[in-house]
Amino acid sequence: MEGGPLLGHTHWVTSVAFSPDGRRIVSGSCDTTVRIWDTQVQAMVGVPLLGHTSRVTSVAFSPDGKRVVSGSWDKTVRIWDIAGVLRRHGQW
Amino acid sequence: MEGGPLLGHTHWVTSVAFSPDGRRIVSGSCDTTVRIWDTQVQAMVGVPLLGHTSRVTSVAFSPDGKRVVSGSWDKTVRIWDIAGVLRRHGQW
Amino acid sequence: MEGGPLLGHTHWVTSVAFSPDGRRIVSGSCDTTVRIWDTQVQAMVGVPLLGHTSRVTSVAFSPDGKRVVSGSWDKTVRIWDIAGVLRRHGQW
Amino acid sequence: MEGGPLLGHTHWVTSVAFSPDGRRIVSGSCDTTVRIWDTQVQAMVGVPLLGHTSRVTSVAFSPDGKRVVSGSWDKTVRIWDIAGVLRRHGQW
Repeated sequence: MEGGPLLGHTHWVTSVAFSPDGRRIVSGSCDTTVRIWDTQVQAMVGVPLLGHTSRVTSVAFSPDGKRVVSGSWDKTVRIWDIAGVLRRHGQW
Repeated sequence: MEGGPLLGHTHWVTSVAFSPDGRRIVSGSCDTTVRIWDTQVQAMVGVPLLGHTSRVTSVAFSPDGKRVVSGSWDKTVRIWDIAGVLRRHGQW
Repeated sequence: MEGGPLLGHTHWVTSVAFSPDGRRIVSGSCDTTVRIWDTQVQAMVGVPLLGHTSRVTSVAFSPDGKRVVSGSWDKTVRIWDIAGVLRRHGQW
Repeated sequence: MEGGPLLGHTHWVTSVAFSPDGRRIVSGSCDTTVRIWDTQVQAMVGVPLLGHTSRVTSVAFSPDGKRVVSGSWDKTVRIWDIAGVLRRHGQW
């Protein structure tokens, strides 16, 4: 019915969303990280996106799928260049 | 004004979304399940999607409507092959 | 900068969304109701959508804008025929 | 990997979303404000949108990107004319 669970977050996952092309998923967690997942290989892409210092409450992909935005209990909003993350990992 | 409530979840419903074609709804619940509903017959499609071991906080359909993603307090993200679920129930 | 607040809910508003054509807004609340708002006249359309027996946690419009789905702490999902609501009020 | 955090909110950020053209982000916060951010210059656009008297729980852009809706624990829904905000700041 589905692959196994996508493992990595170390605390509650609070928000998930698909990329516009359906190939990626973004997740935000109370572990303060934002993570990108590949839906084909069912694994995390690159490394956890570090920066927030408290739980991530809300995540969303940009309409072109190249960026992600996250909001956090640390009072900040962060914009992540996913294309850059993927390029560095040879996955874009 | 509307049909009766869609019954099945055994704890709070936390997140709902329509499929891109408007024919299905996905819901996530504190009962740890993800469920797919048919908007025409106003009933659950297939069986509850089991796997998460704590409350589901966020659900979303893929842009092609064939998959659903869910995030949970069990620290995992899960991708569900809805097309497969529906095929097995002769509803795709 | 904006009109005044849209008044009606008697407890916290938990979730809001625009209709696909941008003319309506749906809101869900801890007052157990779902409400539809007209963005032009900045007022509620029809009557509060009653049925849920506990707080509404998540609301969304269907892609064709004719229906709304809501999830609630009452363990149910409800599909609302907004076109029908509006017709009865001569607003569709 | 990304610019620095977008600073301004004075309490938890609860909800974030991209505008349909990907140029703006809206955020809602427990500081009662709604804020618009420019993704190019990575800075707030205009001034904080004031009006809510309790935490903002949910925000969304209209399909045309000209308006934002917000829901709050103050029991109200508010529609914000973002085009107007941007015009006054010479950013539309």
